[in-house]
Amino acid sequence: MAAILPELAAQVLIPVAAAVGIAFAVLQWVLVSKVRLTPERRGEGGAGKSGPSDYLIEEEEGLNDHNVVSKCAEIQNAISEGATSFLFTEYKYVGLFMGIFAILIFLFLGSVEGFSTKSQPCHYSKDKTCKPALANAIFSTIAFVLGAVTSLVSGFLGMKIATYANARTTLEARKGVGKAFITAFRSGAVMGFLLAASGLLVLYIAINLFGIYYGDDWEGLFEAITGYGLGGSSMALFGRVGGGIYTKAADVGADLVGKVERNIPEDDPRNPAVIADNVGDNVGDIAGMGSDLFGSYAESSCAALVVASISSFGINHEFTPMVYPLLVSSVGIIACLVTTLFATDFFEIKAVSEIEPALKKQLIISTAVMTVGIALVSWLGLPYTFTIFNFGAQKTVHSWQLFLCVAVGLWAGLIIGFVTEYYTSNAYSPVQDVADSCRTGAATNVIFGLALGYKSVIIPIFAIAFSIFLSFSLAAMYGVAVAALGMLSTIATGLAIDAYGPISDNAGGIAEMAGMSHRIRERTDALDAAGNTTAAIGKGFAIGSAALVSLALFGAFVSRAAISTVDVLTPKVFIGLIVGAMLPYWFSAMTMKSVGSAALKMVEEVRRQFNTIPGLMEGTTKPDYATCVKISTDASIKEMIPPGALVMLTPLIVGILFGVETLSGVLAGALVSGVQIAISASNTGGAWDNAKKYIEAGASEHARTLGPKGSDPHKAAVIGDTIGDPLKDTSGPSLNILIKLMAVESLVFAPFFATHGGILFKLF
Amino acid sequence: MAAILPELAAQVLIPVAAAVGIAFAVLQWVLVSKVRLTPERRGEGGAGKSGPSDYLIEEEEGLNDHNVVSKCAEIQNAISEGATSFLFTEYKYVGLFMGIFAILIFLFLGSVEGFSTKSQPCHYSKDKTCKPALANAIFSTIAFVLGAVTSLVSGFLGMKIATYANARTTLEARKGVGKAFITAFRSGAVMGFLLAASGLLVLYIAINLFGIYYGDDWEGLFEAITGYGLGGSSMALFGRVGGGIYTKAADVGADLVGKVERNIPEDDPRNPAVIADNVGDNVGDIAGMGSDLFGSYAESSCAALVVASISSFGINHEFTPMVYPLLVSSVGIIACLVTTLFATDFFEIKAVSEIEPALKKQLIISTAVMTVGIALVSWLGLPYTFTIFNFGAQKTVHSWQLFLCVAVGLWAGLIIGFVTEYYTSNAYSPVQDVADSCRTGAATNVIFGLALGYKSVIIPIFAIAFSIFLSFSLAAMYGVAVAALGMLSTIATGLAIDAYGPISDNAGGIAEMAGMSHRIRERTDALDAAGNTTAAIGKGFAIGSAALVSLALFGAFVSRAAISTVDVLTPKVFIGLIVGAMLPYWFSAMTMKSVGSAALKMVEEVRRQFNTIPGLMEGTTKPDYATCVKISTDASIKEMIPPGALVMLTPLIVGILFGVETLSGVLAGALVSGVQIAISASNTGGAWDNAKKYIEAGASEHARTLGPKGSDPHKAAVIGDTIGDPLKDTSGPSLNILIKLMAVESLVFAPFFATHGGILFKLF
Repeated sequence: MAAILPELAAQVLIPVAAAVGIAFAVLQWVLVSKVRLTPERRGEGGAGKSGPSDYLIEEEEGLNDHNVVSKCAEIQNAISEGATSFLFTEYKYVGLFMGIFAILIFLFLGSVEGFSTKSQPCHYSKDKTCKPALANAIFSTIAFVLGAVTSLVSGFLGMKIATYANARTTLEARKGVGKAFITAFRSGAVMGFLLAASGLLVLYIAINLFGIYYGDDWEGLFEAITGYGLGGSSMALFGRVGGGIYTKAADVGADLVGKVERNIPEDDPRNPAVIADNVGDNVGDIAGMGSDLFGSYAESSCAALVVASISSFGINHEFTPMVYPLLVSSVGIIACLVTTLFATDFFEIKAVSEIEPALKKQLIISTAVMTVGIALVSWLGLPYTFTIFNFGAQKTVHSWQLFLCVAVGLWAGLIIGFVTEYYTSNAYSPVQDVADSCRTGAATNVIFGLALGYKSVIIPIFAIAFSIFLSFSLAAMYGVAVAALGMLSTIATGLAIDAYGPISDNAGGIAEMAGMSHRIRERTDALDAAGNTTAAIGKGFAIGSAALVSLALFGAFVSRAAISTVDVLTPKVFIGLIVGAMLPYWFSAMTMKSVGSAALKMVEEVRRQFNTIPGLMEGTTKPDYATCVKISTDASIKEMIPPGALVMLTPLIVGILFGVETLSGVLAGALVSGVQIAISASNTGGAWDNAKKYIEAGASEHARTLGPKGSDPHKAAVIGDTIGDPLKDTSGPSLNILIKLMAVESLVFAPFFATHGGILFKLF
Repeated sequence: MAAILPELAAQVLIPVAAAVGIAFAVLQWVLVSKVRLTPERRGEGGAGKSGPSDYLIEEEEGLNDHNVVSKCAEIQNAISEGATSFLFTEYKYVGLFMGIFAILIFLFLGSVEGFSTKSQPCHYSKDKTCKPALANAIFSTIAFVLGAVTSLVSGFLGMKIATYANARTTLEARKGVGKAFITAFRSGAVMGFLLAASGLLVLYIAINLFGIYYGDDWEGLFEAITGYGLGGSSMALFGRVGGGIYTKAADVGADLVGKVERNIPEDDPRNPAVIADNVGDNVGDIAGMGSDLFGSYAESSCAALVVASISSFGINHEFTPMVYPLLVSSVGIIACLVTTLFATDFFEIKAVSEIEPALKKQLIISTAVMTVGIALVSWLGLPYTFTIFNFGAQKTVHSWQLFLCVAVGLWAGLIIGFVTEYYTSNAYSPVQDVADSCRTGAATNVIFGLALGYKSVIIPIFAIAFSIFLSFSLAAMYGVAVAALGMLSTIATGLAIDAYGPISDNAGGIAEMAGMSHRIRERTDALDAAGNTTAAIGKGFAIGSAALVSLALFGAFVSRAAISTVDVLTPKVFIGLIVGAMLPYWFSAMTMKSVGSAALKMVEEVRRQFNTIPGLMEGTTKPDYATCVKISTDASIKEMIPPGALVMLTPLIVGILFGVETLSGVLAGALVSGVQIAISASNTGGAWDNAKKYIEAGASEHARTLGPKGSDPHKAAVIGDTIGDPLKDTSGPSLNILIKLMAVESLVFAPFFATHGGILFKLF
């Protein structure tokens, strides 16, 4: 039985969906660009669509103040330049790394059959002939470069639009929160759609181009395609870890001197590290998060495709069901497009209290719409019955079962999102309890915060475990891969919401630095507060999907490495498991220490400027922003090397010295241990941040007993917030990369390890 | 081929070694008791043995001050009464719990064959006839009660001797550090030898008594004996978790008001929580640590015995090699006895700087002596060749291979000890770096401290992994069990060193409270500082052995449950693995929150007393110590229930609902994840404590730039220390219990789960 959708339709649908996504991103960008940053023509852009909400426009004194507009433009330029300079410095190292690693991939994979150009029997269907290992080496290397470049370009463009949008959001805030919200959200959507669509498009093109050579050797084709996932994820290493260190070194450094020693507010233009801090939001939370999610997306697609190629789809050359993962993503783009309209066009924010619900509604709507989308794709794109490769055997699966796999991932993501919100939003009791514990000082704040983070792991893990159990039972590792894809199918909306956060954060910073009125700052703060919670939700998604993706990659690796069981009760596997479970701690120790050291350097520079530049505290002279930007850039690049090396070298060392069984143990151990630390670190940090904001805002009777700013409980809360910064923005999210990248690297190098690995055991 | 040592010799050696151990403990106790706490006869006791070291006696003004002596006696009584009252309250609940759990064990195990009294085919040798499941139910229940009572009595006596020795140590400190050190160390040795010897003796007697019924059904006999391990470990749950919450609620509560709010020194008699704090040291660090290590000891013995019974020893009824684990422990007692003489008789401490080396030498000497002991036992007590049960097959093992298994465990313990020392002692750079980070405030202190804890996991995990790999490869699960036993073979010395710490800590507290001179306090502080580091080493041992023990128990469980592989790549096992890896977080969230809540109650009471009792701050009226003791007692009992329930119920719920495969996953996941958090939490806490002490002591140029007491860096260090308290004394060490207890409980209930478990999967 074949799928209802013919191959031609699939061949049309995917690129069209990708094109629509890109077009939509461009449209959003055009809409944002209508907010002018040149004083004389200000306000012209919004006119066309602001008709029905005129009553929201609360005209400010500064609305026609040319001085404010040019100040905003100036600050935006500084941020944009800082971010560009960081990314270009980073790219120099990325280029070097990619070059070396591409050569490694080629050499390792080419050596599997001694660089022979002769065709070989296929790995899974021994009776068929497949392309030579050398072809796999060449195409894997190309796919690797493609994945890396796509991730890099998407991240760069995302950062560009974010730094393009932040001052515009500030200016729009003069007209009301609704306008500012729409500007920030549209800019986020540019990033979201661009990344989702280009990721899909490049993958689609690569499959078709590679297919010209591979012909009907689907197994070989999709094996080579896994390089795409590795490329995407390697870039994420630089984005997440480097960006994470950058942003927190600047943030912690700025806070330690500014808030604690000099007692000046956040984002005060007198603080020399303030531009670096704002740059950090863009390179860490936007480019970093983008490359992380792009990596997950690329990897889960590759994991699904590689399993599909050795299932009945691949064996019977059924194109439409084979590209089912791409069809799901295509429909995802359309579903997210519809969802976005609910935020920007169908409704309009009229009050501060509507911001957070509007963002949450985005998640719910996209999930609901996508559920229908998945049902459609599963019905049209899959035969009713097919078989899936299951560690050596073929397992019969029905299309509705695959629908369940994708849907369970999608909904698990929503659950993780809401649990994260519950534990990190100050609207609920967990964060309020943490805030309350500040009464007895910083120590109890930290104890309660850590306990909160630990506790917040419970439900997400049950949700992930349930998704894994269901998808694994129904469709083996293919099921897990598509469950991950389900969680990521609304990636465009997820990224839009994520990117919205730092844009609003920057907008607030610009308002402060441009000396705009208190009311403007209040509005951007409201946007930012909602962004904080959604950022935590985004991290929850990223971690949840990373867990599923890693398992799928792990499964694909095990299949490739021709291991039939990964038995904990063998010494080789068990030592891998316990050492693997240790790696996230080692990695976190490195990243946290990195932030600490980089922040100390920043502290010294900020102190030096305050002490040596006369008139700085009085606001009569400008600080030297550029030196701080440079310190953050240099420190993050330098500090990224040890954790990066740990991630990249572990699979190689373990695979070569101990072989594939121990490597399986390491992957499983790192996965089950890393996901816990990642969730707890992110949520602890988010909770401390919002506990501090809770005390500062003083919105309830209880909150007012803890405040105001500068009170002892508030000081304790600031300490918690500072500790939480590296936890939630560096070490926590970086763990996603650890577990995913080790898994995908193992998968790509699996043929090499299976052939030449485990020398230590062979010697003794 | 049989062992060289005949059965009769083994039958004599074991009880004799145990008796020698007990006699040695009594002797030490008699020596300690010669220090008089009644003023008129003071000094008489030490006369006999102080001859050669008279030059050390630095006569103090207070040496003949009757007032000081009676004050010390009074304070000691208050501490002893508080500790006794807590333990008796705890025992009420323990009694209830033990009663209920004993009934559960009986019912669950009895129901396996429907309470039939008929003999049944053996589990492993199907052709033989074994005793009925009902006998297993009855004897397991008896063994459970025996294990629990032995642990309880040992812990109680240890606590008694500790509270008996603390004031005596204070009084001896008037004569010099050497004298005080000997008193404290001897008292610790009482605890160590009593526990090691009575644990061995009771186990030996139980085996012989049960043997009367079981005859040559070794399989049945040792299956029932596993109840002994469960009993020991269940008590440890109360000791570690309850005691841990008690001690830290009192400590944190006392510090938060005393040090932070009222600015009075530690152990100041004006602080109402000061007695509760001192009581806590005894119930947490002495009774709790004792029951924890006793549990590990009992469990590793049981795990080894149960595997031995189905190996060639059991099949061929070779008594001597069968009780090899007990022989190792017997020799261990003798080795530790020799080692102790090095601390108390062969050499004498002449300066403060010699204390820490003397304690470290204890570890090295005991390890070296014991290596010879193990070689002897392995040569005499084992046939040259034998077979060990290995998940369904029999594996041929040589006696020297078993020697390697025990020795690798022993030496891995030493390595873990020294790594722990490196990361927690302020003589080395890691703690000094943490202290240095206090310059920029509490936040950087916490970030660096957490990073240090994460980093300190690396080498211990490699040491554990190497031990597991070697012992597992050489002698399967039997090898792992005896490796654990090897690590614990010097338990008497380990416990002596451990117990020495809180005794010295208490001695310092008593000196402060009795208003003794600054010089006395300096001496007890020096004793205490060394004790802090050794306490961290003890925790390292406890965690390392817990990891090995749990794996051995896990292996025994899998054998009992008749699972041949625990394949990570099956959904049932994988969800167990990821949920199991989450449990330590859940558990830590509970225990940390418990300490937080209990400490807040204590804070309120201490504040109330300071605010309402006139003359308290001035020192003219005495605070109401008893109420604080009661608050800690009540809070710890109440707060212990949720984490206790989590540990005890998880194996039951998972086993009954999901079956043995998922339970295997849970055990493996909890083990590999829990051991990391346990090590990092203990070391982070220890490092913060010693970073604070480093600043306070101001012994180096660097340290003086951070101090003195009351400086901003010192305040930051105090915050770190307070956060570390629950990490290092409650949640960290409690995780040992989590992983061990779940494993031993699963082992005991394995026949029930294998027969009636997994209903959820059976239903769907």
